[in-house]
Amino acid sequence: MRGAVMHGPGDVRIEERDEPRIVEATDAIIRVSAACVCGSDLWPYRGIGVEDLEWPAPMGHEYAGIVEEVGAEVETIKSGEFVVGSFWASDNTCEICRAGYQSACVNRVAMGALGAQAELLRVPLADGTLLATPELPADDLIPSLLAASDVFGTGWFGAVAAEAGPGKTVAVVGDGAVGLHAVLAARQLGAERIIAMSRHEPRQRLAREYGATDIVEERGDAGVARIKELTNGLGAHSVIEAVGTQEAMMQAIDATRPGGHVGFVGVGHGVAVPGMELFWSLAHLHGGPAPVRRFLPELLDLIWARQVDPGKVFDLELPLAQAAEGYDAMDQRRAIKVLLRP
Amino acid sequence: MRGAVMHGPGDVRIEERDEPRIVEATDAIIRVSAACVCGSDLWPYRGIGVEDLEWPAPMGHEYAGIVEEVGAEVETIKSGEFVVGSFWASDNTCEICRAGYQSACVNRVAMGALGAQAELLRVPLADGTLLATPELPADDLIPSLLAASDVFGTGWFGAVAAEAGPGKTVAVVGDGAVGLHAVLAARQLGAERIIAMSRHEPRQRLAREYGATDIVEERGDAGVARIKELTNGLGAHSVIEAVGTQEAMMQAIDATRPGGHVGFVGVGHGVAVPGMELFWSLAHLHGGPAPVRRFLPELLDLIWARQVDPGKVFDLELPLAQAAEGYDAMDQRRAIKVLLRP
Repeated sequence: MRGAVMHGPGDVRIEERDEPRIVEATDAIIRVSAACVCGSDLWPYRGIGVEDLEWPAPMGHEYAGIVEEVGAEVETIKSGEFVVGSFWASDNTCEICRAGYQSACVNRVAMGALGAQAELLRVPLADGTLLATPELPADDLIPSLLAASDVFGTGWFGAVAAEAGPGKTVAVVGDGAVGLHAVLAARQLGAERIIAMSRHEPRQRLAREYGATDIVEERGDAGVARIKELTNGLGAHSVIEAVGTQEAMMQAIDATRPGGHVGFVGVGHGVAVPGMELFWSLAHLHGGPAPVRRFLPELLDLIWARQVDPGKVFDLELPLAQAAEGYDAMDQRRAIKVLLRP
Repeated sequence: MRGAVMHGPGDVRIEERDEPRIVEATDAIIRVSAACVCGSDLWPYRGIGVEDLEWPAPMGHEYAGIVEEVGAEVETIKSGEFVVGSFWASDNTCEICRAGYQSACVNRVAMGALGAQAELLRVPLADGTLLATPELPADDLIPSLLAASDVFGTGWFGAVAAEAGPGKTVAVVGDGAVGLHAVLAARQLGAERIIAMSRHEPRQRLAREYGATDIVEERGDAGVARIKELTNGLGAHSVIEAVGTQEAMMQAIDATRPGGHVGFVGVGHGVAVPGMELFWSLAHLHGGPAPVRRFLPELLDLIWARQVDPGKVFDLELPLAQAAEGYDAMDQRRAIKVLLRP
């Protein structure tokens, strides 16, 4: 079968890879209907944080598709069903999963290592990882269902971690797909006011469509000052950090009022949070790899009912064969997010 | 009147200071029944973080005493009452106070700048800062009432920030007075299991008396490994950091299970939390200067009913005239906490 493989920074190729097979009795094999390129795939693509990586590496951890085969112990998932799963495989039964942190399941498996940008994909712990749609979806629903696998679930987690909700003013740092989905999540969670921080007109437009009430173009200290201006000098109740840089993290902490909440979902490369600044901020800080599986039932319901359209972040769709072009388009910010059709 | 003044690291003197007077109509003047030396007073005493300090500096921010006089606009506090107040003066009416973060009140005043280790003390925003006891307290209750002013309130905030409660395993990093009070608070909040990290026998004994079910003597990575061993490999649900060093902060984060809560109340000198470690920990992080005023009604009730005895942390009582000896005893860890009687 064909799949995307990264041979080093900037070097993504579509190659013949071994067909995945059932290894554990809890596995499923799915035929991938759609996969995509993640903002986090751009870190190795740009050569950042690659010290511990081994090349060549199969790529992709976001997926939706049709079940081809299941292992002998799989009970809830059947061949022929359309499924979506999290970017972490989880048993969904351990103590950590039951507390809602499936991305830290004691038996978790990183889907990235299995390479979802491919025709076929092995999904470990299928019962705990995958969720089937009520029936096969209309083709136009597939981008949104795919988005639930990571980017929408991650934005949603950011909004939950920031305790976005009724009566709250929410600010979102980052206008990538996750940031835009955090706006959408904050709106769904009932936030009163949603401030998107973005200086890119097409992204501002989508942010407004997703529920942003205000746009702030300033960054860093100027961005913080603008958020304070908009919040009676106090700062936002909830701030979602969806970038993963030092500047974005400090912008998020500084823009939060005392007692407010920062939800951070950017993978913080080289970030160090100064203790004194955190101490005096009196902010709550929570984030990390999103436990998407916690939210998946709710997100699939919303998408199935067409109440949300997270698939709109895919502004470029390519056949899997052109995956390299997809990476380049995201790297150069020509595309917000790229959908790949195997 | 006599009061403690720090002239530089290691140099605390009792001197004649001007008697405080009503400056604002919302002020009260109290005759201090008891004051004390705080762990945070030891930072400048040891010459750490003193770059922005001006010497000589009046010392002390913990106090309990009898109201001598109130300003024209003070409504709830009367002359002759015994009062306890937070180490931050707050109006207790602004939006931040109403959210429970009085230590970040938009009109806050740092009591430390006013010097509570003295015979008399001006308390700004008296209505929002002070709470009176039902009647004049018995003398043996005064240490516990004084403790509510900061150290017990701070330990309590640490436990609340760490979401200590029924069914939870709580670990406490730091066996100073705040750490010991965090143990006491966790017990009052209903925690199932409380692990005190301490290698000092007298402090271990008080920790057990306050409700610790386990003692861990190891520190750093070994301490983390021991907490994991005691928690089925997962880590504690709630960890309270009551030291303020890099080692203590990382010990707290690493000892917390995914989805668990770190409550940090140590003033983090030189601490920097690495973003990647925080990201992968999936812990919640919350702390800072404790909003003691939020908890004061509950704490005074508990103390008045003799359900808790936080005053036990005072293992050395000195007349104010010997304040310098008190600083030295805490610096050298000969005393957990020193009470000063003006």
